[in-house]
Amino acid sequence: MNIVCIGSGNVATHLAIAFKAMGAEIIQVWSSDSRNAEILAALTKAKPFRRWEELDRSADCYVIAVKDDAIASVASHLKGVKGIVLHTSGATPIEMLSGAGSGYGVLYPLQTFSKTKAVDLTKVPFCIEGNNPETLEKIAVIAQLLSANVSVVSTEQRMILHLAAVFASNFSNHLYHLSGQLLEQHELKFDLLRPLILETAQKVQSSLPIDVQTGPAVRNDQQTMEKHLDLLKNSPELQQLYQSLSNSIKKSHL
Amino acid sequence: MNIVCIGSGNVATHLAIAFKAMGAEIIQVWSSDSRNAEILAALTKAKPFRRWEELDRSADCYVIAVKDDAIASVASHLKGVKGIVLHTSGATPIEMLSGAGSGYGVLYPLQTFSKTKAVDLTKVPFCIEGNNPETLEKIAVIAQLLSANVSVVSTEQRMILHLAAVFASNFSNHLYHLSGQLLEQHELKFDLLRPLILETAQKVQSSLPIDVQTGPAVRNDQQTMEKHLDLLKNSPELQQLYQSLSNSIKKSHL
Repeated sequence: MNIVCIGSGNVATHLAIAFKAMGAEIIQVWSSDSRNAEILAALTKAKPFRRWEELDRSADCYVIAVKDDAIASVASHLKGVKGIVLHTSGATPIEMLSGAGSGYGVLYPLQTFSKTKAVDLTKVPFCIEGNNPETLEKIAVIAQLLSANVSVVSTEQRMILHLAAVFASNFSNHLYHLSGQLLEQHELKFDLLRPLILETAQKVQSSLPIDVQTGPAVRNDQQTMEKHLDLLKNSPELQQLYQSLSNSIKKSHL
Repeated sequence: MNIVCIGSGNVATHLAIAFKAMGAEIIQVWSSDSRNAEILAALTKAKPFRRWEELDRSADCYVIAVKDDAIASVASHLKGVKGIVLHTSGATPIEMLSGAGSGYGVLYPLQTFSKTKAVDLTKVPFCIEGNNPETLEKIAVIAQLLSANVSVVSTEQRMILHLAAVFASNFSNHLYHLSGQLLEQHELKFDLLRPLILETAQKVQSSLPIDVQTGPAVRNDQQTMEKHLDLLKNSPELQQLYQSLSNSIKKSHL
């Protein structure tokens, strides 16, 4: 399988390297930033390019992993290509690609990627969608190259997954940051919290979060919550978050 | 070392079993609920008891792992014992034990415990405090039986750690729950989010959360945030949480 990789950020890099490892050939890498394109192209033995005239229009598959607001513009350059055109965005409808390629669809990996940390893609849930059943079947084959965890998910469901991922991952990470700041203000190291953070995430790998909720809010331990709010009296923003999240926990356990 | 375990909940159970495994003898288990005391006593080959007259006053160490608001009452029954008296609470000052035992202090494991899941205590941070340097040294020896990760932490710092743990663990777990509910409403399985949740926690084991923050808020991607708020239009509570947490992320990255 010949793949053109469009984009050179975290998602593009992880996908291109994994495709390559599975025996696919990355023939070209496009990026608006020629240096990034060169780095990823070197990693995958592909040819970097920046001018759309140089696009190889005979690839089997075009994987678009660029910022959401650049997908439409990229798609306009893929009109009439033979291969399947895929975007990898959680928040972009499939229709954004209509007209690009004979078959098009979505290959959305539900994971958080950073440049510096390898991720085992074989366990990452890939959410796929296709513009027709035939294309969907081909996309499933492509997705299964990368992962054993492939689900067909509609655009509407994918939007919800993307939103849910913001709560489960982006917001949780920010709570880690806020707790780390509290520690720093009192000359305590973030290291102290790391095992707790990991165990909290490991617990819900086999349980549902509602069944393992702990802390003062779920016990309705007013005394401790008041002490905590008092400790936060100089951080109105943290106080407000503490209140809202505690109230939300109490409501979930009524 | 002979230990009397006071309490039979999650913390008491994990600690007593770990002490036993490290060669300490659990000689008695007290619980206000005689059935729980019997279960934990059977697990650790100890004697269960409920009436304070039966307390063995010659133990080396008394580990109090009961609800915070029961610590004072338990301590009143330990007046004049020979051994060291320890509580295990994050939110309770050391002074709550003054008068109980000749030496007293705190052995606070910074971890979330559930009955059904084993936790490797050797990596759990134990925060210790003692009423004098001599006692503190003895408490350090006791704590090092259980964990390689022992820190001396003042009552004031411990209160902050406990509060930070609410943000990092209790609130994160609740965000997992809220995201799971969103999925459920759209016939999607919580399984889809599990790898993302684990990876998010794993990432901060070697990085600081601020350096690995992803998502629309840190990118200031207004379009996506507006889409998300629109998807939440029937859940004013989630909308408000989304706004507050997104604003807090934006402020942290100014």
